[in-house]
Amino acid sequence: MTGDAMDGHTTASPYTPSVPPLLRQLGTAHTWDVAAELPVRYAIKQVEDLFDPDNPALLEYGNTARRLVVIDSRVASLYGERIARYFRLRHIKAEVLTLEASESVKDFPHAFTVVEALEAMGVNRRSEPLIAIGGGVLLDIAGFAASIYRRGVPYVRVPTNLMAIVDASVGVKTGVNCLTRRNRMGSYYAPIAAYLDRAFLATVDTRHLANGMGEIIKLAVIKDASLFDLIDAHSGLLMATRFQDSIVAPEVIRLSVQGMVEELAPNLWETELERVVDFGHSFSPMVEMTALPELLHGEAVGLDVLYSCILAWQRGWLEWCDVERVQQLMRRVGLPTHHPGFADVDLLERALTDTTRHRDGLQRLPLPVAIGRARFVNDLTRDEMTRAAGRMAEMTGAATMAVAA
Amino acid sequence: MTGDAMDGHTTASPYTPSVPPLLRQLGTAHTWDVAAELPVRYAIKQVEDLFDPDNPALLEYGNTARRLVVIDSRVASLYGERIARYFRLRHIKAEVLTLEASESVKDFPHAFTVVEALEAMGVNRRSEPLIAIGGGVLLDIAGFAASIYRRGVPYVRVPTNLMAIVDASVGVKTGVNCLTRRNRMGSYYAPIAAYLDRAFLATVDTRHLANGMGEIIKLAVIKDASLFDLIDAHSGLLMATRFQDSIVAPEVIRLSVQGMVEELAPNLWETELERVVDFGHSFSPMVEMTALPELLHGEAVGLDVLYSCILAWQRGWLEWCDVERVQQLMRRVGLPTHHPGFADVDLLERALTDTTRHRDGLQRLPLPVAIGRARFVNDLTRDEMTRAAGRMAEMTGAATMAVAA
Repeated sequence: MTGDAMDGHTTASPYTPSVPPLLRQLGTAHTWDVAAELPVRYAIKQVEDLFDPDNPALLEYGNTARRLVVIDSRVASLYGERIARYFRLRHIKAEVLTLEASESVKDFPHAFTVVEALEAMGVNRRSEPLIAIGGGVLLDIAGFAASIYRRGVPYVRVPTNLMAIVDASVGVKTGVNCLTRRNRMGSYYAPIAAYLDRAFLATVDTRHLANGMGEIIKLAVIKDASLFDLIDAHSGLLMATRFQDSIVAPEVIRLSVQGMVEELAPNLWETELERVVDFGHSFSPMVEMTALPELLHGEAVGLDVLYSCILAWQRGWLEWCDVERVQQLMRRVGLPTHHPGFADVDLLERALTDTTRHRDGLQRLPLPVAIGRARFVNDLTRDEMTRAAGRMAEMTGAATMAVAA
Repeated sequence: MTGDAMDGHTTASPYTPSVPPLLRQLGTAHTWDVAAELPVRYAIKQVEDLFDPDNPALLEYGNTARRLVVIDSRVASLYGERIARYFRLRHIKAEVLTLEASESVKDFPHAFTVVEALEAMGVNRRSEPLIAIGGGVLLDIAGFAASIYRRGVPYVRVPTNLMAIVDASVGVKTGVNCLTRRNRMGSYYAPIAAYLDRAFLATVDTRHLANGMGEIIKLAVIKDASLFDLIDAHSGLLMATRFQDSIVAPEVIRLSVQGMVEELAPNLWETELERVVDFGHSFSPMVEMTALPELLHGEAVGLDVLYSCILAWQRGWLEWCDVERVQQLMRRVGLPTHHPGFADVDLLERALTDTTRHRDGLQRLPLPVAIGRARFVNDLTRDEMTRAAGRMAEMTGAATMAVAA
C-alpha cells in the first residue's frame, strides 16, 4: 500500500476515479429519510359476564394454556375466587399477581414487579397476553410493564370501575408517577383488547361511581346531547342500581365509549392539541393536585365542567338553564359543585397558564356552545375567570339555600 | 321512580321502546375496532465534522436555546471540550450528563438518571431534543429514557464507534438489561435524527474498529457484493487510517447504512421474522453469552458469518474460494476466525434451538447463495452443523499453518 493510499487520497480507487475533490466531499453527505407506519389495532368490547366459565371472550387472543393475570388487591378480594374458577374451568394455568394499586403506589417499582412476573413465568411474547384487571392505576401500571418488557408484549385490559371503563380503557396511554409528578414515565401502547363488563360496578361505592360520572358528564356536555339527556333522565336509576339495569346503563356506557373512541382514535398519540376530551381538564389538574387527596379526578373534572359552562354562558353560548341542568345533574349523582379551588382566581389563572404550556402555547380551551357542541377558545381573560368564579360561588350558595328551604 | 325503573326494565325508556328483551341484551354486546397508524419518520445523516462550530446540522431540529446532552464518559474525556465549545459558540445552553456506559451498567438506574436530568432541566418536550453521544450502550440507555419520559420526548443519536454507526443508529430499538438478560426492558422508539460522523473513529482502538467490521462484513456477505469487494480491496486502508480517508471510508459507511436501511425500514418493529440482517446472529448470541466478556459482539457475529458460509458451501451454494475470501478478510481486519464455541456442536445446536424459538418456531436461517445474495433455510440438520464445525476447525488450522510457513 502506498503512502497515497494510506492517507486515503489514492487515485487508484475504482469508485470515484475522476471526481474532483470538492465533489467527493459533498458525495459523503448522504441522508436517508426513513418513513414507516406502525399499524395499531385493538378492540374495545362491551361484554356481559366476562368471568362466566361459558364465556370464551377473554381468551379469544393467544393460546389456551397459560396467562399471567395482574389484579388489583381490592378486586381480588371481591372477585378473586370467581376469576380463579373461570381459568380453572377453562383449563388455563393462570399465574396471579395481586397488586395494591393506588395513586400513591403507582410507581416504577410496582411496574417492575409485573416485569419480574412476566420474566419468571417466561411468557410467550406472542401467544400469552398479560391480563390486567383493575382500575385506572392498575391498568396504567400493568400496561406500562407490558410496553417495556422485551420492547412490548401483548396485554388485555379489564377495567373494574366506571372511570376506567369509560376513560382509561379507551385510549392507549400507560404510565407511572415519579419525581413527584403524575405519569412522568409511561408510553403510548395499545392493548390488544379491552373488555368492559359493568358487572364489576355492582360493588363500586357511590363516590367512585360519581367519579366516573364526572367523565361521562364531561363528554355529554361537550359532544353528545343525547347522552346528556339520557343520564339527565336516568341518573337516579343509574346510581341506585349501580349500572346494573340492562337497558339504560349499557346504553350510557355505549354512548360514552363511542364518544371517546370518536375523539381518541384519530388522535391516539395526542399530536392534535385541540381535543374536546380535554373539556373539564383545563383548570382541574392544578386544583386537583392542590387539593389532593381531597378531590377524586372525576370530581375535579366535574367542577371544571361546571365552571367552564359558566364561562360559556358569559359569552352567550349557553342558556343559564343549561348551566343549571349541568349543576343539578352533578348534585343528583353526588358530585361536588363547589370547591375553594374554583373560587381562587390566582390558582385558576396559574392552572390555565400551565395548561396553555402543555398545549404548546395556546389555550385551546374547549367550551360548549350548546349542550353537546364544542368550540375552542384562545382568548379567555382573567376578568372572565374572575366573574365566572364569582357566579359559581353565588350559584352554589343559591342552590344550597334552595335545598335548605 | 317506580320499582320497574329501579330494576332497569322500565318500559318507559325512550331509547328501546319496542325491542324484545333478547335483542336488548344482544344490543349491549357492542364492539369497537380501533385502527390507526403511527407515522414514524427520522433522518440518518452521514456528516462531516459535526462539532465544527460552523456546522448547524446537529441543531436543525428544535429551538436554539437549550439542550440536554448525554455523553459516554470515554467520549467526553476525548471530545468533551470540543463539544462544549460547539454549544458555547452556537449560544446553546447545554446541560451535560456524563455516563459511564458499558454493558455491565446498561441498566434501569442509569436510564433513570437520564429521566431525572430531563425532569431537572424541565426540557420542553417538543423543542428541546435530548442529544445522546456515545456507543451502542449509551444510545440504548438514553433512547430508552427518552422513550418513557412523559411518554416520549424527541432525541438525537450521535454514534461514536463503528458498530453504533452502521448498526445501532439505523434502527429504532432502545433498551436496558435486567434480570440478567440483555435488553429485557426497552422500546421501539425512533430518534428524530442520527448523525454519522466518522471523525470519532480516529480514536477508536483497532479491536473495536474490527468489531464494527464484523457487522459490515455480515451485511456485505448476505446482501451486497459490491460492498464486499470494496472492503475486501481496501481493508488495509480502512483499518490503517481508522476510516479517516475521504473516499473509501465514507463509501463503506454509506453502503453499509444503505443496506441496513433497506432491510430495517420496512420492518422497524420486527414483525417479519425472515430478516437477512439476522445473518451472523443465529448461533452467535449463545456463544457470545457463554464466552462473555471474551468475545465482542461483532467478533461473535463474524465467527457466525464464517460458520454459516461453510454451511452454505456444504449445500453447494458458495464456492470454497468465497469462504476463503471471507475468512481472509476477517483475518486482515483483526477478527477472530476460530473459537471453541464454534467447535462445540451441542452448544451450537442449543443456540439454534433458542434462535428458532425467537423466530416463532422456524429456523429462518439466512444463508448466502453467493456473496451478496441470501436464502432462508428451515431444515438445517445436526449432521450439517457437525460437519461445518469440523471444517471450520480444519480451515483455521490450515490457515494458521499457511501463515506460519
